[in-house]
Amino acid sequence: MTASNEAASSRALTTGRGAPVRMDRTTRAAKRRDTRAALVRCGVEMCTKQGFQSTGIEEILREVGVPKGSFYHFFPSKHAFGEAVIESYAEYFERKLERLFSDTSRPPLERLRAFVEDAERGMRRYDFQRGCLVGNLGQELGVINQAFRQRLEEVLLSWQHHTAECLSQAKSRGDIPADKDPVALAEIFWIGWEGAILRAKLAGDAAPMRHFADYFFATIVK
Amino acid sequence: MTASNEAASSRALTTGRGAPVRMDRTTRAAKRRDTRAALVRCGVEMCTKQGFQSTGIEEILREVGVPKGSFYHFFPSKHAFGEAVIESYAEYFERKLERLFSDTSRPPLERLRAFVEDAERGMRRYDFQRGCLVGNLGQELGVINQAFRQRLEEVLLSWQHHTAECLSQAKSRGDIPADKDPVALAEIFWIGWEGAILRAKLAGDAAPMRHFADYFFATIVK
Repeated sequence: MTASNEAASSRALTTGRGAPVRMDRTTRAAKRRDTRAALVRCGVEMCTKQGFQSTGIEEILREVGVPKGSFYHFFPSKHAFGEAVIESYAEYFERKLERLFSDTSRPPLERLRAFVEDAERGMRRYDFQRGCLVGNLGQELGVINQAFRQRLEEVLLSWQHHTAECLSQAKSRGDIPADKDPVALAEIFWIGWEGAILRAKLAGDAAPMRHFADYFFATIVK
Repeated sequence: MTASNEAASSRALTTGRGAPVRMDRTTRAAKRRDTRAALVRCGVEMCTKQGFQSTGIEEILREVGVPKGSFYHFFPSKHAFGEAVIESYAEYFERKLERLFSDTSRPPLERLRAFVEDAERGMRRYDFQRGCLVGNLGQELGVINQAFRQRLEEVLLSWQHHTAECLSQAKSRGDIPADKDPVALAEIFWIGWEGAILRAKLAGDAAPMRHFADYFFATIVK
């Protein structure tokens, strides 16, 4: 973004029907950051529901209450917006996994169970309308920019890494047999889990998530 | 479709730059069926690649070589087209499963293995660009007509039914233990398999399909 774009952006935010409101540089910058964050937040919500292609910039601007035409003051392209949405979701999920998996008050396998239960609550909260942003965007790869592909795969690999670490701790305690490979099991978990989220969305029910998780837990302890 | 629409459709197909070609009623009807089938075939290809929302009617008409504006001679709406695309894919898949699972020259579990290998070849053939049409449309449920939801779930249940039948035969032969439930296992297979197809598309590699299938086969025989 150029300096003149930056200035135009501040003006766009402060001029409406009434007289321009005077804002100092710090207030303008803070407001700009807030608006950008609100656009990304709305983008995350819509992409978890319907993917990236179907998510219209105009709809997002309307939802957030930002004047039409000022999108490019915040993002150079829809693609750049998509990248910001992926990063935001990845950060949110990373924090969630770190919090759940570092909870030493429970044994490691119960931490993974807690993640499964947290996901079920999340799916119910939005009446099974919202799925996984990474899964949704992954399905669209035929059309969305191939640059997304690598980032989405990296995000999944990071989730697998956290899960493998958790399973590794379970193995150290003898909760899963010594001949099991936590890295391979974490990959299986995430392959199946993305399928379970998709199916729960389709069925409008948490049963697929519970059935897959139950099967996974039953098989890893044998 | 009304009779006058039908007549308009035939005209649209027969009038071009040159003089109209005379066709009798039977030839016109056959040509109409061929064109409709070609549109559906192209719709299946594009939806396996990128889902329904991103698939443009204009692009399909251009691909098939049908004049712009004549789409509504074949389908009353894009939704009706989507339904025809789902039915076509469902029939194709039903035939594939019936063929593979009724192959009594191999034991039942090897028939399921043959399906997995067939799917891997299919993914490779299109360079991991095309996934599962049912999975793709399932991800879009936030926006696509909810009427699709029930049909997509029915299609998956039918695939599970075939798979459960195959696993049941394996159980009768003692290839999987007597305490296993073929119906529950078939559900787990399809939950995980849709996730594996998604991940293979994302990774551009068949490894997720192979890893999930290996895990599934290893766990059902224990």
